[in-house]
Amino acid sequence: MENSPSTLIQSKQKIVVLRWGHRIHRDSRLTTHCALTARALCASGFILSDIEDKSIEKTVKGITGHWGGDFTFEMGTSWRTVVRDWRAQGGIVVHLTAYGENLQTSNAINRIRETGKNILLLVGSQKVPGEFYSPEVSDFNIGVGNQPHSECSALAIFLDRFFEGKELEVDFEQAKMKIIPQEHGKNIQVNQEKP
Amino acid sequence: MENSPSTLIQSKQKIVVLRWGHRIHRDSRLTTHCALTARALCASGFILSDIEDKSIEKTVKGITGHWGGDFTFEMGTSWRTVVRDWRAQGGIVVHLTAYGENLQTSNAINRIRETGKNILLLVGSQKVPGEFYSPEVSDFNIGVGNQPHSECSALAIFLDRFFEGKELEVDFEQAKMKIIPQEHGKNIQVNQEKP
Repeated sequence: MENSPSTLIQSKQKIVVLRWGHRIHRDSRLTTHCALTARALCASGFILSDIEDKSIEKTVKGITGHWGGDFTFEMGTSWRTVVRDWRAQGGIVVHLTAYGENLQTSNAINRIRETGKNILLLVGSQKVPGEFYSPEVSDFNIGVGNQPHSECSALAIFLDRFFEGKELEVDFEQAKMKIIPQEHGKNIQVNQEKP
Repeated sequence: MENSPSTLIQSKQKIVVLRWGHRIHRDSRLTTHCALTARALCASGFILSDIEDKSIEKTVKGITGHWGGDFTFEMGTSWRTVVRDWRAQGGIVVHLTAYGENLQTSNAINRIRETGKNILLLVGSQKVPGEFYSPEVSDFNIGVGNQPHSECSALAIFLDRFFEGKELEVDFEQAKMKIIPQEHGKNIQVNQEKP
């Protein structure tokens, strides 16, 4: 497929998003939006750590089923276990936080690329454990700006810059539905042959 | 100030975000994150249309009070009135929607810049009125990708691209608090002289 991730996205580094600090009900929509952002912007998967939330799992798997791709969704494992296993397999951890190195003014994104390693992208909420900022957990702490705003926005901009914008033009494989971009109005193509 | 918006951001086009379709409680965190994203990424203001939500107003004004800038927050006016008045004052309307022209593959952002006009950036939710897609309301319909994800993420990437990343290094004026970016750990500077 011409616009598949493998032809468009140059990076061989896989990115999986770990969402910490989700609260059922209160964070339902925000965490769902983080997961859908991760999927739409070509992360490989999403891990909801330390808690299970079946409604989010259902939404994310439903979207992937309709709109394609092979995005993975996991939940319930403790963040410590996820981080330990990720590092044991040779990956690095990048924590998105307003306190970190500024994505725009530092060279952090190049240093992350130069590692060549798969990336566990840690997105928290207001009060993350202090350990998240330490080198024992996070190889990089990155501020998508140094103002308080949103883990969802920070995630989106990080992925857009890491994949150099190419992630926005990917055709997802096995899609049952596909939008045909329009200047005005809506146009959805439904592929009835897909299972 | 060296890193003020006026020296860093080249655009003379002002952007105000209009959030449509907010539901009290259910969308509380998501709409707050949209507003904080708008502020942190150098939009000039945020309008919560058709509804009032004092808790969001309080959060957004509180953040602006502590972290600086002159971001405006309004609520309760109907979207039709806001759009009509915006157009009457010579501004254009840009609607962020997965159905629109692809931000990456089209030249839409250049055409928006070339208008030279102030931008009302319309962000909706799942079911926006059909009129939003029409030229009578939206001069441009822009898809930050053509996959379903998040109005918060779409807003963030649009602003990051429109302001060419410079918005992430702006120093906000009148800030009582300022983060000093760190590779590890946290460092907040508190300016006790500010009122």
